[in-house]
Amino acid sequence: MTVEITATHRLHDGALRYCKHVSASTGTPMKFTVWTPDGEGPFPYLVWLSGLTCTEDNFTTKSGVYEHAARFGIAIVAPDTSPRGEGVADDPAYDLGQGAGFYVDATQAPWAPHFQMYSYVTKDLLEAVDGAFPLDPARRGIFGHSMGGHGALTLALRNPDLFKSVSAFSPIVSPLNCPWGDKAMTAYLGEDRAAWRAHDACALIEDGAGQSFDDILIEQGLADSFLENQLKPELIEAAATKAGRKITVRRQDGYDHSYFFITSFIGEHLAWHAQRL
Amino acid sequence: MTVEITATHRLHDGALRYCKHVSASTGTPMKFTVWTPDGEGPFPYLVWLSGLTCTEDNFTTKSGVYEHAARFGIAIVAPDTSPRGEGVADDPAYDLGQGAGFYVDATQAPWAPHFQMYSYVTKDLLEAVDGAFPLDPARRGIFGHSMGGHGALTLALRNPDLFKSVSAFSPIVSPLNCPWGDKAMTAYLGEDRAAWRAHDACALIEDGAGQSFDDILIEQGLADSFLENQLKPELIEAAATKAGRKITVRRQDGYDHSYFFITSFIGEHLAWHAQRL
Repeated sequence: MTVEITATHRLHDGALRYCKHVSASTGTPMKFTVWTPDGEGPFPYLVWLSGLTCTEDNFTTKSGVYEHAARFGIAIVAPDTSPRGEGVADDPAYDLGQGAGFYVDATQAPWAPHFQMYSYVTKDLLEAVDGAFPLDPARRGIFGHSMGGHGALTLALRNPDLFKSVSAFSPIVSPLNCPWGDKAMTAYLGEDRAAWRAHDACALIEDGAGQSFDDILIEQGLADSFLENQLKPELIEAAATKAGRKITVRRQDGYDHSYFFITSFIGEHLAWHAQRL
Repeated sequence: MTVEITATHRLHDGALRYCKHVSASTGTPMKFTVWTPDGEGPFPYLVWLSGLTCTEDNFTTKSGVYEHAARFGIAIVAPDTSPRGEGVADDPAYDLGQGAGFYVDATQAPWAPHFQMYSYVTKDLLEAVDGAFPLDPARRGIFGHSMGGHGALTLALRNPDLFKSVSAFSPIVSPLNCPWGDKAMTAYLGEDRAAWRAHDACALIEDGAGQSFDDILIEQGLADSFLENQLKPELIEAAATKAGRKITVRRQDGYDHSYFFITSFIGEHLAWHAQRL
């Protein structure tokens, strides 16, 4: 799989590349960024999954992550949130279609042919970046925000062989139990809610997935307007308690759902992953 | 002058506000952001002036400054780069008109009535933020990027009573000696180049302005595509040497003109200002 580098910027004593490649899973070109520190590597790395409406650019320009990545010598990979472009299905709403892939493999029309973001991230993206950059696949973690927090949690829980650490900001912890989840999972996976369990962090914990994670760190702002209706971190705390698993939810007074929240705590998440990678 | 707060976000143990007020100088509504740390203050603060095409949002979302501002207890004010909106003159080019105020008071039609960014920043903005937020006017510095680096240098050199410290990223150091300057100063100030000297950092140093600054810090990327044709930091070094003044130009290998350069060194600039405020 060939990776085309469309732009390079020097950033915090390392190299940031904007990249493009063709994904076999989505059947489309896909974009992502990769930052590595100076040096030969191979470097431990974190995959960041973004939230609704984001491209590969939002986290790259707004998170302030690279200063901390440089401090810990951790590389960062940030993909787009869905296939895009002509011939790819879309919806006028911000929470479905392009920019809203939800990190699942769609089975329903019109989404099925291209919306294969679960396979894209876990196979095509990892294969591409591991092949093209000095990254250490044995020291790989994952994190994300909102829809991307859901993606990080579910991809990690299902693939503890691929990811050694996982954290999330303001994640959708249970698509089975919120309006965003209802809408997206119905559209992508169909009416049979049993099929949604493989993409629901709470259900995965109930079902015993990803036992090898010693802890999962969740950061949640208490002024987040989606907290009560969509995010509901108490559901994953309850699932963890029931399963005898450790999940740490840190509730932060006054912080909202924006990148201003993410950037305020991204350094602490890097430190947390650094201990595990 | 009433400041309307249009949005507030908690950010790095402080409060970020998006603000709007009416400027007597520009005769238009103007936008800016203000971040202050938690606590009563009054806080020392830095005014950031942005470059071509920017609004008050670019630095606010992309610079990563607030982590360092929190570390040093320094507040940050970031205004828009020009008046905007219906009834305000504009030009199709990115380097003239809305988004390109160049921090001068225009004397020429069609710019003169609204493009009064020198007076806006030095009078209306400072008066508004000092009145509305817990800021210490006696511990105020200024910095900026590109066109905003030009703004920071010229406003500080002309107003050492207003600003105790000044630094710049990739500044236009001499509008008299570059195409961006030629075009903007001709449009805003007219053909008489003598009138430009008050808005040219090199000329101001030649003319003895701002003697009280013990040092001026300039950060310049060596992979900046505007370096040779527009920025020319060697001109301000020569002017400083001739005037027996200290200016420190730090040249950084591989870095370009983007926010990825700014964010890589913003922490060091905050530390530098913190020593002086």
